[in-house]
Amino acid sequence: MKPTNPLDELMQALRVLPGVGPKSAARMAYHLLQHDRQGAKRLGLALDSALNGLHPCSQCNNFSESPVCRLCSSNERDNTQLAVVEMPTDLVMMEQTRSYHGLYFVLMGRLSPLDGMGPHDIHLDKLIARACDGIVQEVILATNFTMEGEATAHAITELLNARGIAVSRLARGVPLGGELEHVDPGTLAQALADRRPLSLP
Amino acid sequence: MKPTNPLDELMQALRVLPGVGPKSAARMAYHLLQHDRQGAKRLGLALDSALNGLHPCSQCNNFSESPVCRLCSSNERDNTQLAVVEMPTDLVMMEQTRSYHGLYFVLMGRLSPLDGMGPHDIHLDKLIARACDGIVQEVILATNFTMEGEATAHAITELLNARGIAVSRLARGVPLGGELEHVDPGTLAQALADRRPLSLP
Repeated sequence: MKPTNPLDELMQALRVLPGVGPKSAARMAYHLLQHDRQGAKRLGLALDSALNGLHPCSQCNNFSESPVCRLCSSNERDNTQLAVVEMPTDLVMMEQTRSYHGLYFVLMGRLSPLDGMGPHDIHLDKLIARACDGIVQEVILATNFTMEGEATAHAITELLNARGIAVSRLARGVPLGGELEHVDPGTLAQALADRRPLSLP
Repeated sequence: MKPTNPLDELMQALRVLPGVGPKSAARMAYHLLQHDRQGAKRLGLALDSALNGLHPCSQCNNFSESPVCRLCSSNERDNTQLAVVEMPTDLVMMEQTRSYHGLYFVLMGRLSPLDGMGPHDIHLDKLIARACDGIVQEVILATNFTMEGEATAHAITELLNARGIAVSRLARGVPLGGELEHVDPGTLAQALADRRPLSLP
């Protein structure tokens, strides 16, 4: 039952945005129509060109304008390392460290049965095919350190170990500048379990 | 400096929506592209048809698909009464009372110098012309009982009184079901000042 009035339809359509309920949708619609028609036009065009112009990169699954994205087609990256992240924003964070030079695979989510996100939704088949290309030597799991991110990392580890691919996980521990007094006990327990031997040079 | 990448442009464009910052814009863009392309398409079309299909009613200034909206062109309304409201949502609230049968004028805002909303932005010229059509006998100010709504009501009263138009304001007082113990002192003071004589039948 799509509303026929353009105003009602706009309010309904705005509710496809996550976190937007009926009241915000009404506020947004009035704002756009009354005070930012230019912005509304821009948004309409941007939606159209994003829908038509962006597709998953055949290699890393990130949004890309070309069949293979710029990062995957760069010849300055180490193609023996593949970091698995949940979302494109995580890839951006990894790049900002300037200390990773391998390639990526973007799951576009995490395993989350409650939200209906299963192995197919996070493209695990595509990841396996990608990781088993004969060039990748190490898959670095950089999913979040949440319950769901850990479960996702666990599932990927099982799948890739069964295929003889080496898998590693980002280290957990006390954050840079962290004071033990203010670190949560779980993190501290992990930092203790993962303690590293020190040797003087 | 409009970004050339369709994804960045979509994230930028989403920020025209009130209350949407860079992080929500990114979340919305990923959500739409990954999980609701259908919804994104619908939103694009809705923006387009709202922009092209809705214009201010020449009578009441509300959004309308026709030059004069359905309410203003109805012949079941009392055209001697004109209620002035801030936003279309206020008009809907008034209609829900089922106790007002006159016409409306929608300011599409309120006087608010801090937000750059002056007399021109709330269409006071159009309101004056509408109220002075020779048919309207009473203008009922139904702006909000906020500082800005009151200031708006005050400004309109001055403009219309100068032109000999009768102006009234919605009553302030204790709300239906309100207990004195829980009413704020300002409302109670107003209810006391505006007390009405009672006479037994």
